Amino acid sequence: MAFPDLMMARSLLPLLDIAGIAIFAVSGALAAARRELTIVTFFFFALVTGTGGGTVRDLLIGAPVFWIHDNRALAVCLIAALAVWLTPRRIWPVQALEWSDGAGLAAYAVFGSWKALAQGVPPLGAAAMGVITACLGGIIRDVLAGEPSILLRPELYVTAAALAAGLFVGLTLLGAPLLGAAVIAALAGFTLRGIAIARGLALPGYRD
Amino acid sequence: MAFPDLMMARSLLPLLDIAGIAIFAVSGALAAARRELTIVTFFFFALVTGTGGGTVRDLLIGAPVFWIHDNRALAVCLIAALAVWLTPRRIWPVQALEWSDGAGLAAYAVFGSWKALAQGVPPLGAAAMGVITACLGGIIRDVLAGEPSILLRPELYVTAAALAAGLFVGLTLLGAPLLGAAVIAALAGFTLRGIAIARGLALPGYRD
Amino acid sequence: MAFPDLMMARSLLPLLDIAGIAIFAVSGALAAARRELTIVTFFFFALVTGTGGGTVRDLLIGAPVFWIHDNRALAVCLIAALAVWLTPRRIWPVQALEWSDGAGLAAYAVFGSWKALAQGVPPLGAAAMGVITACLGGIIRDVLAGEPSILLRPELYVTAAALAAGLFVGLTLLGAPLLGAAVIAALAGFTLRGIAIARGLALPGYRD
Repeated sequence: MAFPDLMMARSLLPLLDIAGIAIFAVSGALAAARRELTIVTFFFFALVTGTGGGTVRDLLIGAPVFWIHDNRALAVCLIAALAVWLTPRRIWPVQALEWSDGAGLAAYAVFGSWKALAQGVPPLGAAAMGVITACLGGIIRDVLAGEPSILLRPELYVTAAALAAGLFVGLTLLGAPLLGAAVIAALAGFTLRGIAIARGLALPGYRD
Repeated sequence: MAFPDLMMARSLLPLLDIAGIAIFAVSGALAAARRELTIVTFFFFALVTGTGGGTVRDLLIGAPVFWIHDNRALAVCLIAALAVWLTPRRIWPVQALEWSDGAGLAAYAVFGSWKALAQGVPPLGAAAMGVITACLGGIIRDVLAGEPSILLRPELYVTAAALAAGLFVGLTLLGAPLLGAAVIAALAGFTLRGIAIARGLALPGYRD
Repeated sequence: MAFPDLMMARSLLPLLDIAGIAIFAVSGALAAARRELTIVTFFFFALVTGTGGGTVRDLLIGAPVFWIHDNRALAVCLIAALAVWLTPRRIWPVQALEWSDGAGLAAYAVFGSWKALAQGVPPLGAAAMGVITACLGGIIRDVLAGEPSILLRPELYVTAAALAAGLFVGLTLLGAPLLGAAVIAALAGFTLRGIAIARGLALPGYRD
């Protein structure tokens, strides 16, 4: 196999993984809170946002869907939803959550590409899987909530995921050690997203 | 295997299954009728609503999608769409359909959990599969129709599915016979949904 | 196997296939252009529109998703998005694109049914796979863009795909040679779509 030690992702990243799912799940539950929905919809939005991107990735690359046979991810989403439901919204620091979401975005973009490479997906496809893992949960959340999705806003979001995923795949192609490539790529993606949050950095829109 | 006789679901439930698909398909076709759409969209909505939940469940648990290699479900959806198309809308008793939909909801929540358990999915995931089987067809229908989905209304709907699925999984965990657990769980879910229909029972919304 | 020479689809159609993906990808990128979105969303819409229908088909019939292990389709989508991004919108001839889209629609309906038959899917399911392959990319594009989808407009579109897919499956059932059936079915679907474009032909809506 081309990337044997990619499999160490499985032993290395589970804690980070759970943290990322929890952050995305909280963002989903807060979307439900903004609309003053019920506890059941809190669960649903937390689950879809927390696991949606990875679910689509696993379906596309033909891997078993990650949360079906190991229900820890599911439990984390339920707990996140319950935590948001039981607390007033103002205790959830919007700014801190946005930065955590940016960290999750960058980490998931790398993780998704890594898993795809480990399954033998070629580079371009693996980078696409990273972007999908990082962004699709939030997009599905917005479509279900009837809100304009991240996709339709000029803010740098998908771009930061694309930078992290593309850089990770590119560096491994050039022979960089996996862990080093992962850290550099995730930091680059997080930095770009951070600049977008702090400075309102946006991509230019198409002009006719 | 932990649940050998779960497989009898395959011989026991096909008729109920077809009835459930037909009810959901009619509800999809009626959504197309409300918007005065064409016969082709009637087919599409009937198909998506009738089979959507089970399709997503099968993709997630890695089972062959149930209507691809046995086209009876597909045929039932096409017939349901045609029946709605050929008749004036007022002959379809909204109230009766809502109750039938509630019965289908409860039955499908149990059936989906059952199939997931039979595939070796652990309890929490199996309960989630039940909820998805019961509710996702209707949610996809609403998103495609551009309507606010069940998810965004406070009415008890997903909750009834969650009660049926959770009770079924819980009872089987406690060692109850499968068929008994299925009947009790489906009745409980249907009763809860019935109270919601009759009394307008709703979950409380989140308050800041 | 029932349809041994169906596999020649793989050697016969790749060029046509790439052309079809490119046309759909351009239509996706133009949707992003109309909304003055960013280059990243251009990529996303081109990818979803170009590959969405085939992706859902492959997931449903249990085939490996076609663009994951052969990234040419992905590359074509990225190039199409870039081409639209770099050029003023008026150089893209709307009328010509609509006709090209019609050709892609008819060709994909046949191709999707063909692939499903080759995977052993029974006739009714195979015809449905053809319609899904041809139409679903555009539907997902519209849902993500928050626009009313093809489904909700009376214009003949899904119908043309259904004609091509149904005719192809029907003719092969009657023993017609595959290539002949494919050409006849695609031409019939394209003609119907062409009449709809030229004359504004639409299906009647449901009347109560």
